[in-house]
Amino acid sequence: MDKIKQNSPVLFYFNHSKKWLMKISKKESLHTHIGVIKHSDAIGKEYGSRVMTNKDKYVYLLKPTMYDYVMKLQHSTQIVYPKDLGYIVARAGIESGQKILEIGTGSGSLTSFVASIVKPRGHVYTFDVDENFMKIAEKNIKKAGVSKYVTQHNLNLKTAKKMPLADMDVALIDLGDPWTVLPQVRKMLKGSGSIFAICPTMNQLEKLTMGLVENEFTDIESTEHILRRIEAREGKTRHSFQGIGHTTYLCYARKAFFGRKSKNTKSKTTKKITKKTIKK
Amino acid sequence: MDKIKQNSPVLFYFNHSKKWLMKISKKESLHTHIGVIKHSDAIGKEYGSRVMTNKDKYVYLLKPTMYDYVMKLQHSTQIVYPKDLGYIVARAGIESGQKILEIGTGSGSLTSFVASIVKPRGHVYTFDVDENFMKIAEKNIKKAGVSKYVTQHNLNLKTAKKMPLADMDVALIDLGDPWTVLPQVRKMLKGSGSIFAICPTMNQLEKLTMGLVENEFTDIESTEHILRRIEAREGKTRHSFQGIGHTTYLCYARKAFFGRKSKNTKSKTTKKITKKTIKK
Amino acid sequence: MDKIKQNSPVLFYFNHSKKWLMKISKKESLHTHIGVIKHSDAIGKEYGSRVMTNKDKYVYLLKPTMYDYVMKLQHSTQIVYPKDLGYIVARAGIESGQKILEIGTGSGSLTSFVASIVKPRGHVYTFDVDENFMKIAEKNIKKAGVSKYVTQHNLNLKTAKKMPLADMDVALIDLGDPWTVLPQVRKMLKGSGSIFAICPTMNQLEKLTMGLVENEFTDIESTEHILRRIEAREGKTRHSFQGIGHTTYLCYARKAFFGRKSKNTKSKTTKKITKKTIKK
Amino acid sequence: MDKIKQNSPVLFYFNHSKKWLMKISKKESLHTHIGVIKHSDAIGKEYGSRVMTNKDKYVYLLKPTMYDYVMKLQHSTQIVYPKDLGYIVARAGIESGQKILEIGTGSGSLTSFVASIVKPRGHVYTFDVDENFMKIAEKNIKKAGVSKYVTQHNLNLKTAKKMPLADMDVALIDLGDPWTVLPQVRKMLKGSGSIFAICPTMNQLEKLTMGLVENEFTDIESTEHILRRIEAREGKTRHSFQGIGHTTYLCYARKAFFGRKSKNTKSKTTKKITKKTIKK
Repeated sequence: MDKIKQNSPVLFYFNHSKKWLMKISKKESLHTHIGVIKHSDAIGKEYGSRVMTNKDKYVYLLKPTMYDYVMKLQHSTQIVYPKDLGYIVARAGIESGQKILEIGTGSGSLTSFVASIVKPRGHVYTFDVDENFMKIAEKNIKKAGVSKYVTQHNLNLKTAKKMPLADMDVALIDLGDPWTVLPQVRKMLKGSGSIFAICPTMNQLEKLTMGLVENEFTDIESTEHILRRIEAREGKTRHSFQGIGHTTYLCYARKAFFGRKSKNTKSKTTKKITKKTIKK
Repeated sequence: MDKIKQNSPVLFYFNHSKKWLMKISKKESLHTHIGVIKHSDAIGKEYGSRVMTNKDKYVYLLKPTMYDYVMKLQHSTQIVYPKDLGYIVARAGIESGQKILEIGTGSGSLTSFVASIVKPRGHVYTFDVDENFMKIAEKNIKKAGVSKYVTQHNLNLKTAKKMPLADMDVALIDLGDPWTVLPQVRKMLKGSGSIFAICPTMNQLEKLTMGLVENEFTDIESTEHILRRIEAREGKTRHSFQGIGHTTYLCYARKAFFGRKSKNTKSKTTKKITKKTIKK
Repeated sequence: MDKIKQNSPVLFYFNHSKKWLMKISKKESLHTHIGVIKHSDAIGKEYGSRVMTNKDKYVYLLKPTMYDYVMKLQHSTQIVYPKDLGYIVARAGIESGQKILEIGTGSGSLTSFVASIVKPRGHVYTFDVDENFMKIAEKNIKKAGVSKYVTQHNLNLKTAKKMPLADMDVALIDLGDPWTVLPQVRKMLKGSGSIFAICPTMNQLEKLTMGLVENEFTDIESTEHILRRIEAREGKTRHSFQGIGHTTYLCYARKAFFGRKSKNTKSKTTKKITKKTIKK
Repeated sequence: MDKIKQNSPVLFYFNHSKKWLMKISKKESLHTHIGVIKHSDAIGKEYGSRVMTNKDKYVYLLKPTMYDYVMKLQHSTQIVYPKDLGYIVARAGIESGQKILEIGTGSGSLTSFVASIVKPRGHVYTFDVDENFMKIAEKNIKKAGVSKYVTQHNLNLKTAKKMPLADMDVALIDLGDPWTVLPQVRKMLKGSGSIFAICPTMNQLEKLTMGLVENEFTDIESTEHILRRIEAREGKTRHSFQGIGHTTYLCYARKAFFGRKSKNTKSKTTKKITKKTIKK
């Protein structure tokens, strides 16, 4: 049986909007609108048990999942949401053992989620240029317990002369201008390897799609993902009144080889066109 | 470099609706509306390369991902779609190393997808009662390359006296009446463990939710997932005309301990109510 | 030209969430977070002009449309939203000149909207049993300027012996248990006439549909309507982050004659079944 | 009672996908997959009654609504769908008595729908440049029974020197480049009057929005409308498997007066910018 002890991570769960993810620290107490929770009350209990606040409210002691780690970050930073994370994994066929390239570490939520899947033999190589963000991400990845399966690089791939990696199974891009790194990604990705980009605007989808064709990708697919909550209750089941909004669009593709003849001459021309049309 | 040879699995990809997943067999040819593809043309090529049909159409030689294996099954059976598979993984925090219980093997698509994530140290234990279906699932799981991480059981858990497993991280239920196995699932699941049920109708969501409360689950969430394709093209980007319909609703929860006093007497009463209200 | 004068209705419009519908009253001022607006500043101006608040913000003087009257009511009561109102009109083919039956006047928003379409020769006959609500509705209908085309009845149709109307083109039902008035609605509706019910839950749709079949309606259709806002801006067009939630489902049908033989005897039986199945 | 006679319009209704709108012609028969329907069987019957085909299938004799006229056109041309028509009416507050300007008559479906609402004292003025389309539209408008309330103009407003109309309540634009007629629409629209444009692509929304700001419109709103069918059946209610796709986006705004000082000089500059940015 899995019992909670000093330093165990716990999600104190009251309901969908009131929940707190923390490490148990014997002497601490959590002060909330629904009352005070003493950490020491949790020690020795099995995960799934509940404790009572001093305002007589039950709070469940859940074992944090990767979902809880990702959702915890939503208040401080822009995260990739589980509905989108899930599709990325399912569409790209991300599985245990793969090598993943990530450009734009952000808060480290996508990094951690993917690392929890590719471990223990796979790895996530993630690139960013902002040292401050990288430190925050490092902490988040550590909290999620997957540091061992992640390597953070401080490197601007756009200007890098030599690509530091090769033979990646999947590339994930979370940049404002994902089309600018397509030639670099291409070099690091293995043949038929998958690419996913986080694109919050339609204009990004449009430019990226043009860039993907130009850079010899196939099976290109842009999607958006709508999650609707349903309140299932006896005799009055209906969708939630609470709204569902926009998080991001996603763009997927796979690396192909078009095998164009006279590739060099042609590609110069096409590059010119690309510059005009997509870099304005 | 990953080259295609005799017996390599290949996805012959023309476009989203014209694609064929098969094993390379030197002497075979694939006859399609867009022409004939000789398997031997693929041999020796890198994944991602393309070959030409005898009607001058390019077909890409992609390395099949778990997505391709799942989608291949959609024509013959009712499958769990990637948009739903993805959310199951992301919401339940399914990760490498976990032990997964599945009730209702179906075509084996959910089984295979989850196995590809929990491998190499995790495992999927899947239960069904229909021998014919089980054989089909076995084949599909084998094709997807994850047989090693899956154990199929022919056992009716509803009538089983002793539960054959314990300490499962996640339980997945794909039955018409998922509420009937909740006590059994509860016994096999570890504290705070996650449960997901595939519920194609609103009535199932309603009955299951009542059963989950009765059986001491918390963090209950019913959702539906809408995937919309976007056709991103220069100057004329819009959603796809092609429709998006209904696949299934999903119901999630986590095992808790309500620790009710005088549990035995109470539970008899509540069981009676349940029978009347949800089993009619 | 349409100029604003004393007593003219004006929508002071700052943006989608900050707007105020009122009658111009020379000596009054409107105090808002974006500053004070003097009514007198509006007098003599053409509709569409703008005035400045004392905090230097522009506020537009728009001529209220029926949309503005409906949306004004959303804060105080549960209204039928424009996205749903619109489909009711389009699906039932509500047009100028028709006679409309409404059961459940509510706030009078649906009443007013429909009256603005059927006028000047059509009419809306609306029934309610709550005198307080009826007075509020009366005021709202008056403000919307369509009192002349609406008759309010205080009558419980469920227990009424004789139906007060006949030959209605369309019937609109906004009750918690719409199936209970189907026999009455049927008597008042003309052959092939349309019925629409506002059903916030799936269970209502289910019960109502069973009742509609029982009461010889055809072309039965249940729908839900999702409105998504798009923020169209140069180079960064995307859906609104602001969520879209659930308002209501809608159920439509048309009155038919099944022409059952031995109708009387049969209908007694079927009524019994109905009682058991849908009235529990 | 409303009885069917020679020349009466009838919708022969079998189910959502099998229905035929025609005029009764004593000697004719309708040959369908579900059997032959003799028109003469319908004569003398009340609307809502049913007749039997020679294959023993019941077909209902419904009185066509404007919805039926609009949907009948969907097979031959691109129409504005009821879900979108409805929102146009509800958002713009289109009501009986108004004067409506329409640019781009198309099949005449939007024209007919709006005419049925603004009649008998209101009017729809519709402009097109394609004589062939105009003839088709003329027929459709006539079939829908609203010719009296519609005037068709063969005029290219983009190049017209003098605007043929003024003081319109609402303008509806169904052109590929709606932004090109904004100055003309503005002249014909009354202050605070509403404009709606049918925009199938995101790029059109983006360009049009920029044009609307430039041309002094306010309350600008871009939306998309998703209709989902629900199959409500006892114990197994769920959304329809049948997909819902994209029809069009809609863009709404109201005419304002920004009252810019030195308007002439300024507007030249802004026009230049506009040309560069939106006309490329």
